[in-house]
Amino acid sequence: MRNLKITIQYDGTNYVGWQRQDNGTSIQGLLEDAIAPIAGGPVTVHGAGRTDAGVHALAQVATASFDGTLDSLTLARALNAVLPTDVRVLAIEEVEPRFHARFSATGKVYEYRIVNAPIVSPFLSRYVWHVQQPLALDAMRQASTPLVGAHDFAAFQGAGSVVSSTDRVIQRLEWADGGGYDLPLILRVEGDGFLRHMVRNIVGTLVEVGTGRWPASKVEAILASRDRSQAGPTAPAQGLFLVRVEYDG
Amino acid sequence: MRNLKITIQYDGTNYVGWQRQDNGTSIQGLLEDAIAPIAGGPVTVHGAGRTDAGVHALAQVATASFDGTLDSLTLARALNAVLPTDVRVLAIEEVEPRFHARFSATGKVYEYRIVNAPIVSPFLSRYVWHVQQPLALDAMRQASTPLVGAHDFAAFQGAGSVVSSTDRVIQRLEWADGGGYDLPLILRVEGDGFLRHMVRNIVGTLVEVGTGRWPASKVEAILASRDRSQAGPTAPAQGLFLVRVEYDG
Repeated sequence: MRNLKITIQYDGTNYVGWQRQDNGTSIQGLLEDAIAPIAGGPVTVHGAGRTDAGVHALAQVATASFDGTLDSLTLARALNAVLPTDVRVLAIEEVEPRFHARFSATGKVYEYRIVNAPIVSPFLSRYVWHVQQPLALDAMRQASTPLVGAHDFAAFQGAGSVVSSTDRVIQRLEWADGGGYDLPLILRVEGDGFLRHMVRNIVGTLVEVGTGRWPASKVEAILASRDRSQAGPTAPAQGLFLVRVEYDG
Repeated sequence: MRNLKITIQYDGTNYVGWQRQDNGTSIQGLLEDAIAPIAGGPVTVHGAGRTDAGVHALAQVATASFDGTLDSLTLARALNAVLPTDVRVLAIEEVEPRFHARFSATGKVYEYRIVNAPIVSPFLSRYVWHVQQPLALDAMRQASTPLVGAHDFAAFQGAGSVVSSTDRVIQRLEWADGGGYDLPLILRVEGDGFLRHMVRNIVGTLVEVGTGRWPASKVEAILASRDRSQAGPTAPAQGLFLVRVEYDG
């Protein structure tokens, strides 16, 4: 059987998230349903990151193993011909059998976009969080610093997930100023892995600092508390993009 | 009565176009319906350009005259509070009574976006024309040159419009290369005014040149013919943006 690495871009607005669920259409379900007739039977597609409902991906990675003679380019075209236009297969590569989209991943990059202006452009409204109160970016940057490095991020983990450890490493966490009236602020965060809702909970917490409700120093204390109830609200899904999944070599 | 200049941005995907029609929701209708309760009665909103169904606007301009005491900023906020998020009032200014969005306009700028790659990003698919055949941009640029200047553009006028003259002046018509795999080619065209479907018919004609079906030299002959049947097909509405409306002073 061939093992295929599939790179996918999607607008998450209309979906229940990556993972197949009973209550609506998932990206995983769309891909599995598109592959099944080509593979001649059901195929499980494993994604690198389980993006939540409404979260977008510039380059999600998935693996699927099945027999077939179609070359990668033809297969990608065949899938795009049946997938809706808000889900696109960008590339398919044949990889060694032990490669797994999720377990082989060594890192991930996410971006979170905020429009901090009175009006959101109709062309951005599905892809940003609209925060009307002025945000102090300097304070948000200052509050972000203690989050970089190896930490127990239990305070930023969403409810309902079971993981063996809440230790993660954030290699980089940077805010870029959109620089214009209606261009979004972009948080770019790179890490070895992320807990459920971790990026959105970090953003929700940093925005509490940006609006001045909390001092920048509070974020380090929240991290140290390992207590979710200390952190800020979960930022909306629609501002979050899975930008890239990293693998060794 | 106050005369107000209203600048509006919209994603045209879900609308029948600028103009109020019986067969669906129009931008004009949405604005008139939003203003009526504030003005205490029906108000006609005059737009600078009657964008077609599916055409977008970065800065459409409209005028409306009505009484009221709300300042411009409060009025813009009130309208945005009731308008759908894919239609936004960017600004409202009080202007002199004789100013009219359409009749006072001295020029307009449109952009037309084409993705010339095998795959269109889900984040662009509603805002571009997807042309899969490779386009020769040099030939398209060469074919564009004779269109600049004062000409009778009858060959590029869509059916069903009644105008006193088909003479128009194009000051500038330039193709910008998106420069990347999935970034669109952008045609930027500036003129004193445009006939119905004129930009889309020009784009459809230039794409015939880009694919090599027609020589670049044919476009000058089409223009001289003043015969719509000589020109290429009308490019899809979704790639077109009204970028700016110009006024003296």
